[in-house]
Amino acid sequence: MRERRKRRPPPGSPPGTLAPDPSAHRPVIRVFAYGPDEIEEREIAELDELKGLLKAWPVTWLNVDGLGDLDVIRQLGEIFGLHGLALEDVVNLHQRPKAEGYDDHIFIVTKMAAMDAPYGREQVSMFLGQTYLLTFQERPGDSFDLVRERLRKGRGRIRQANADYLAYALLDAVIDGYFPILERYGDLVEDLEDAVLRSPEPDLVPRLHALRRDLSNLRRDIWPQRDMINALIRDTSPVMVEPTHVYLRDCYDHTVQLLDLTETYREVTAGLFELYLSNVSTKMNEVMKFLTVVATIFIPLGFIAGLYGMNFDPGASPWNMPELRWPWGYPFALGLMAAVGLGLVFFFRYRGWIGNPPTPPKDRPARPGEPPRPD
Amino acid sequence: MRERRKRRPPPGSPPGTLAPDPSAHRPVIRVFAYGPDEIEEREIAELDELKGLLKAWPVTWLNVDGLGDLDVIRQLGEIFGLHGLALEDVVNLHQRPKAEGYDDHIFIVTKMAAMDAPYGREQVSMFLGQTYLLTFQERPGDSFDLVRERLRKGRGRIRQANADYLAYALLDAVIDGYFPILERYGDLVEDLEDAVLRSPEPDLVPRLHALRRDLSNLRRDIWPQRDMINALIRDTSPVMVEPTHVYLRDCYDHTVQLLDLTETYREVTAGLFELYLSNVSTKMNEVMKFLTVVATIFIPLGFIAGLYGMNFDPGASPWNMPELRWPWGYPFALGLMAAVGLGLVFFFRYRGWIGNPPTPPKDRPARPGEPPRPD
Amino acid sequence: MRERRKRRPPPGSPPGTLAPDPSAHRPVIRVFAYGPDEIEEREIAELDELKGLLKAWPVTWLNVDGLGDLDVIRQLGEIFGLHGLALEDVVNLHQRPKAEGYDDHIFIVTKMAAMDAPYGREQVSMFLGQTYLLTFQERPGDSFDLVRERLRKGRGRIRQANADYLAYALLDAVIDGYFPILERYGDLVEDLEDAVLRSPEPDLVPRLHALRRDLSNLRRDIWPQRDMINALIRDTSPVMVEPTHVYLRDCYDHTVQLLDLTETYREVTAGLFELYLSNVSTKMNEVMKFLTVVATIFIPLGFIAGLYGMNFDPGASPWNMPELRWPWGYPFALGLMAAVGLGLVFFFRYRGWIGNPPTPPKDRPARPGEPPRPD
Amino acid sequence: MRERRKRRPPPGSPPGTLAPDPSAHRPVIRVFAYGPDEIEEREIAELDELKGLLKAWPVTWLNVDGLGDLDVIRQLGEIFGLHGLALEDVVNLHQRPKAEGYDDHIFIVTKMAAMDAPYGREQVSMFLGQTYLLTFQERPGDSFDLVRERLRKGRGRIRQANADYLAYALLDAVIDGYFPILERYGDLVEDLEDAVLRSPEPDLVPRLHALRRDLSNLRRDIWPQRDMINALIRDTSPVMVEPTHVYLRDCYDHTVQLLDLTETYREVTAGLFELYLSNVSTKMNEVMKFLTVVATIFIPLGFIAGLYGMNFDPGASPWNMPELRWPWGYPFALGLMAAVGLGLVFFFRYRGWIGNPPTPPKDRPARPGEPPRPD
Amino acid sequence: MRERRKRRPPPGSPPGTLAPDPSAHRPVIRVFAYGPDEIEEREIAELDELKGLLKAWPVTWLNVDGLGDLDVIRQLGEIFGLHGLALEDVVNLHQRPKAEGYDDHIFIVTKMAAMDAPYGREQVSMFLGQTYLLTFQERPGDSFDLVRERLRKGRGRIRQANADYLAYALLDAVIDGYFPILERYGDLVEDLEDAVLRSPEPDLVPRLHALRRDLSNLRRDIWPQRDMINALIRDTSPVMVEPTHVYLRDCYDHTVQLLDLTETYREVTAGLFELYLSNVSTKMNEVMKFLTVVATIFIPLGFIAGLYGMNFDPGASPWNMPELRWPWGYPFALGLMAAVGLGLVFFFRYRGWIGNPPTPPKDRPARPGEPPRPD
Repeated sequence: MRERRKRRPPPGSPPGTLAPDPSAHRPVIRVFAYGPDEIEEREIAELDELKGLLKAWPVTWLNVDGLGDLDVIRQLGEIFGLHGLALEDVVNLHQRPKAEGYDDHIFIVTKMAAMDAPYGREQVSMFLGQTYLLTFQERPGDSFDLVRERLRKGRGRIRQANADYLAYALLDAVIDGYFPILERYGDLVEDLEDAVLRSPEPDLVPRLHALRRDLSNLRRDIWPQRDMINALIRDTSPVMVEPTHVYLRDCYDHTVQLLDLTETYREVTAGLFELYLSNVSTKMNEVMKFLTVVATIFIPLGFIAGLYGMNFDPGASPWNMPELRWPWGYPFALGLMAAVGLGLVFFFRYRGWIGNPPTPPKDRPARPGEPPRPD
Repeated sequence: MRERRKRRPPPGSPPGTLAPDPSAHRPVIRVFAYGPDEIEEREIAELDELKGLLKAWPVTWLNVDGLGDLDVIRQLGEIFGLHGLALEDVVNLHQRPKAEGYDDHIFIVTKMAAMDAPYGREQVSMFLGQTYLLTFQERPGDSFDLVRERLRKGRGRIRQANADYLAYALLDAVIDGYFPILERYGDLVEDLEDAVLRSPEPDLVPRLHALRRDLSNLRRDIWPQRDMINALIRDTSPVMVEPTHVYLRDCYDHTVQLLDLTETYREVTAGLFELYLSNVSTKMNEVMKFLTVVATIFIPLGFIAGLYGMNFDPGASPWNMPELRWPWGYPFALGLMAAVGLGLVFFFRYRGWIGNPPTPPKDRPARPGEPPRPD
Repeated sequence: MRERRKRRPPPGSPPGTLAPDPSAHRPVIRVFAYGPDEIEEREIAELDELKGLLKAWPVTWLNVDGLGDLDVIRQLGEIFGLHGLALEDVVNLHQRPKAEGYDDHIFIVTKMAAMDAPYGREQVSMFLGQTYLLTFQERPGDSFDLVRERLRKGRGRIRQANADYLAYALLDAVIDGYFPILERYGDLVEDLEDAVLRSPEPDLVPRLHALRRDLSNLRRDIWPQRDMINALIRDTSPVMVEPTHVYLRDCYDHTVQLLDLTETYREVTAGLFELYLSNVSTKMNEVMKFLTVVATIFIPLGFIAGLYGMNFDPGASPWNMPELRWPWGYPFALGLMAAVGLGLVFFFRYRGWIGNPPTPPKDRPARPGEPPRPD
Repeated sequence: MRERRKRRPPPGSPPGTLAPDPSAHRPVIRVFAYGPDEIEEREIAELDELKGLLKAWPVTWLNVDGLGDLDVIRQLGEIFGLHGLALEDVVNLHQRPKAEGYDDHIFIVTKMAAMDAPYGREQVSMFLGQTYLLTFQERPGDSFDLVRERLRKGRGRIRQANADYLAYALLDAVIDGYFPILERYGDLVEDLEDAVLRSPEPDLVPRLHALRRDLSNLRRDIWPQRDMINALIRDTSPVMVEPTHVYLRDCYDHTVQLLDLTETYREVTAGLFELYLSNVSTKMNEVMKFLTVVATIFIPLGFIAGLYGMNFDPGASPWNMPELRWPWGYPFALGLMAAVGLGLVFFFRYRGWIGNPPTPPKDRPARPGEPPRPD
Repeated sequence: MRERRKRRPPPGSPPGTLAPDPSAHRPVIRVFAYGPDEIEEREIAELDELKGLLKAWPVTWLNVDGLGDLDVIRQLGEIFGLHGLALEDVVNLHQRPKAEGYDDHIFIVTKMAAMDAPYGREQVSMFLGQTYLLTFQERPGDSFDLVRERLRKGRGRIRQANADYLAYALLDAVIDGYFPILERYGDLVEDLEDAVLRSPEPDLVPRLHALRRDLSNLRRDIWPQRDMINALIRDTSPVMVEPTHVYLRDCYDHTVQLLDLTETYREVTAGLFELYLSNVSTKMNEVMKFLTVVATIFIPLGFIAGLYGMNFDPGASPWNMPELRWPWGYPFALGLMAAVGLGLVFFFRYRGWIGNPPTPPKDRPARPGEPPRPD
């Protein structure tokens, strides 16, 4: 985490500086070139093969997995006429999702949720031109396999459509990839809610904190994706054309649903923290009250016992603890103790500090929408 | 809940994928075809009957109850020329309320509150064309019976008007269906307020939490409905025309009233939580203070009693507890205890820790608008 | 409160349904018909008299007190050509203040604060046409008496002006009617502030809660009035003309002042709640600390006393409590107790737990703007 | 405060009602009439002198100190053709700062901070025409002396410029007059921060409360001034012309700086309150923990001592407290006590409740930007 | 800090007043004059040399280090035709970052983070004309060395471009200079998070407070920089031309990233404070509960021991403590104590107050995205 945070070109570097990352994957370049009727899929080693493909096919999708070879990225930049600043953003993995229009292409940055690995994000950059789509990923493995399958099988209108529809299909896969993650968080929120209501263990606190932090990050990941898709819809670029907008609008709705869910979970989590604190203090209060009552009752009794434990000599004078030799002294002392103890118990009950059983639940209003309680 | 959350097509599926839901109801299709003078109402089994109806009548309302047969939905999509994405939204029950304009129809999604069942929502999708209204519901039973009655009896201008007025009437019924729910929550908020002020039982906490959560969900249900109706008003679609806008404006006012009420209840509920915590701590403080005072008074007394319970031999020297044999020893010890105890009581009263009766309420300012207090 | 909340037409009713309210007042209709030079004021029983008046006078103000007779309201709707939805809003007392433009009139809803009765609001509806103003109130008694007096006496420009100036004058009276209420709340906030700072009694909590709730409601009452007046200013209706706008702008300023005051009081009240909690815990801490110190000092002393109260037989061996027969045993025990007690007192002082008098106020910075403290 | 709050005309009064304030100062009218080359300054008694001055000089500044004579204000209104509503605002001292354009003049209301007196505000109203500036203040004494000096000495471009530049110069002086106040609050915030961190005395609470309230009021004073200046810049009045806009822009920047500072102080103050509460509870916890440990150790010891203080007769049977006559009874009892006591101490240390010295500060990360700590 | 805050011209001073600061550095003026092919770099003493340079070279960058000589600043103002207000802002070090367009130049104020010194900001002012860039800094030392190097070496397009590109390069260096600072805060936040979760020491509180304050200030520093760059992009000044906008857009993205990071850290820090308080109270509760349990068990036992320590004379009557002489008296008393003690222990366990080991972590749901726990 810390290491990654620190990989930026130093302040004052010329724009478009591509900083090498020693740990980055070697790029693997895979091409899907297709038209309505045919499709060619292969891995290419030499970038020179590209020009032929671009001329021969209506749409060419070039998928670069791994950013470890800056030369390849620079060459691709030259072939497609890409701006140095955009290339810098491809390599520099701190970008917020965004869409930037250039003269003859659109540059899109998005963040893909890892499908199977633990909480992880991968930056996916796209250059969308009239006849090509160029995508960069940090490492192999992505949410695009179903899209590739659709391309190969020619399912739906993906092979009939232009490169912008392909870009939409990939963005849609990226966005929808957040739903399974939110489902898992939804389950977790419900589990924690049950746990907090059942018994407030202290180890719930760091877990609620982690949950809150994760949801915050999730929101921060999804929010700019919404803006990015909105920008694509509003923009009047010749590359992203009208018929695709209705699909992007659907994609936009999905980001709004994701944000809605995240917001709901965030609110519930914040409420759980309060609930936890309140439950902890309720439980503590219960223990304290018991001590308080026991102590308050026994303190005067103990004092009486201590009193008659004093060693004053009853023989020294008739005023000196004559009770000790009084035949009914002991029963009197016990009776005094019982009287004081019972008096305190009654006082506590009268003040409502003990023994008031909580008012029975049936005379309380039911929550609207609650299924009727069985009697 | 969890099951429902997970019913989405996998990320990367082609748009317009209709995912079958095994638990969905079999569709029942009911048609209301009407003009100013006549009305025909029937259930249809074959979709081919539709075309005749659509031609013969000024307005045709097709109400599909149950989404269990994807073929029926697909056929309806073909008959009315509906977009695949909209059909996907009909089946996928996670939509936010929204209104989307297409070339010759408007697609509306709304959420209907269940009338009699416990807290439940049902997604209602509408396609509004020039001469038809197509509505989809999840299951039988809805808030539309009064509207159907108006259609049958020809009450008001509903039979004179176009399909857009019918759509308004249904939306209005959906929106107004939230009022009884909010009334019930209003009663609950007042009941809980009374309960919190009367005595802060711990079981109020999960109930306040549930109430807060419900109100949050309610707000999230109503908020996009407001936007949806606003979009219908602002849109200049040939399908939803000017004369109906004044009715939608009324409907919009109702959503604003609903949101206002929800906001009020949310605020009060948040305040109740604070009030509860404060009342709990007040009550606990009262108990603790009593113990504190009792303990602080008896601790020194007990010490004195313990002192004269020591077994030093007064015969060993004149310095060894001569008080024990002193004729006034016991009265002196009792007097000492009384002095210490009374001294502490006076000290506590002086510091205002006990015995200050709360200042009588009459010398406090009355709340403005409070009815004058009887003396 | 609850009863009132429930008086709505059922969901699905046709728009414009006038629901009868059995408890509503019988309407009393009073007319002010006037021009620059003359004025006629009377109560009318038959609505047919109206047409003559409307023709004869430049401006006619029809004031309906009480909504108990739906026929009268329907007839007025026909005479002035009012929309059914607007009439429904007149009768249905849940409206937010608003201004809606119709073809030849404006429909205005506002909420009037009760002048002398306890906290209460009354819905006032107005229809403003070129030559008439039609106002509906729930019950007799209002803030308009000074306006009526101006009409009768012809003070100011009210008789020279059109109906829109009269509408402004009434709205201005409604808005300004909130100032006395806010003054009373201002006094209450200051009283509660004094009370909280002086001594935090538990009964302050429900009062702060009620105050917060009232201020919240007040804000919700005033806020839409601001929007309503703003809508009147921005609208370019032929009925509400330019020269009156400068007056409405003044009225708008008043609503902003009202909101400013309400906001201030709300902030202070929220601060008072925190202040109360902090003061309660300060006071409790003080009591607890005293107990803590007393208990911590006497517990070891009591232990020593208990030690020498043990009944081991000193005669059994020289190791068995020889102190009891030691001539200096008792003074030694007392000395030991004194040493332990004093040691603890010094330890507490050293740790700053007791006896540190609070640092004297003179070496603390004065609050800016505070009058210099007398020495 | 309360008295002032209540001085408003009653609701329903005609607009433009000038309510007399018995405590208002008698007006003193001072005129500065000037052109690039000359200046005439005098106090005038008769308003008739005005007309001559207005004709003779390029710019005339009429400064009215004191609002005690409504006749003077009415006459000025007639001479300059001022609107009744504006004159009402001059006298009614509850105005928010604002700028309102009239046909041939602008009406500006601002709030001046008192220079040397304690926390106080004075309402300053200005009417800015082509060749005149009319200013009203509540009482003598203001922040304008340096501006007057500039006029007299002809320093800067003030004598060359029009009346609008003079209005700017006065507004600038009003705005800049808040900087010294914010400086004092800045000092106070730092002092309180030191005090809270050093030792949390209870008397800090009302002071933090007062500070928060003051800063809230300050923000409410400055905020509308920003809007007012912005309105002056955006407005295209013939009176306030383009070349002055660049100066107003500078003035606007100052209001933004003021708001920035206020916001910073408010945030810090809110944080201080939390810090205070946390420090109080830390300190209380420390005391409580000490008691807890002492009590928990001595309670079992006291019990043992009590046990051997029981008076069972060892002669009655060999089971009846034979220890009392056992030669090693006393050492055994002492040893038992020591063992229990030490056991508890070790247990407490093991659980980390006592004796863990706080981890030494050097192994904690330094705050970035902190000067390196001396070792 | 305080001293600096107070250095403003007094309210009412003429605009453009340059207030001398006795502690300011003497200015050092360094010129970079360059074209695509050549570059001249030197320090100049006489401002007269400037005119020649300005004529001879396509771009001239004049860098003034130190604001201690107001004459120099005034002369530069005359040479370049700068507005007095802008010059005042150069000297007055309280400016918010901003960009103001003048006729033939743009005035830019920004805040540079100190590179190596502790937390510090330096105001950098720029005047950007067609062929010149004039920059003012408070003191020597800045983030511009890499830019100077690029100029000298002619790396990138900086020497081919106009003065606006140079201005962009400097702004970019200023903005990027905040990234290392945010990295350090990111490390600190993680360190504090670890510390809070590990053990809540009281000294974390002032550190969290300081961190929160620093992050607040940081946000306040960066926020207006974002607006400033946005203003530069939106403005259509002839000085800052279209081709540079794409670079500024990149710079804008960086400010948004900075704000995003700051926001994240602020949220986490706020959460840490709550976490700290909750951990402190958890730990305190643990200690208190132990005391409570020990005390509650021993108090009744101590009472029994005290009872049999009473000195009633068993010989006085058969009712007077016959147990003392009963052969099984002592075992009975011990048994009674054991029974009471064990009874209380069972009662506590039954209520879940002691001995319930926290439910083992394996049966709790894992956090999504958490690496699987080793068993």
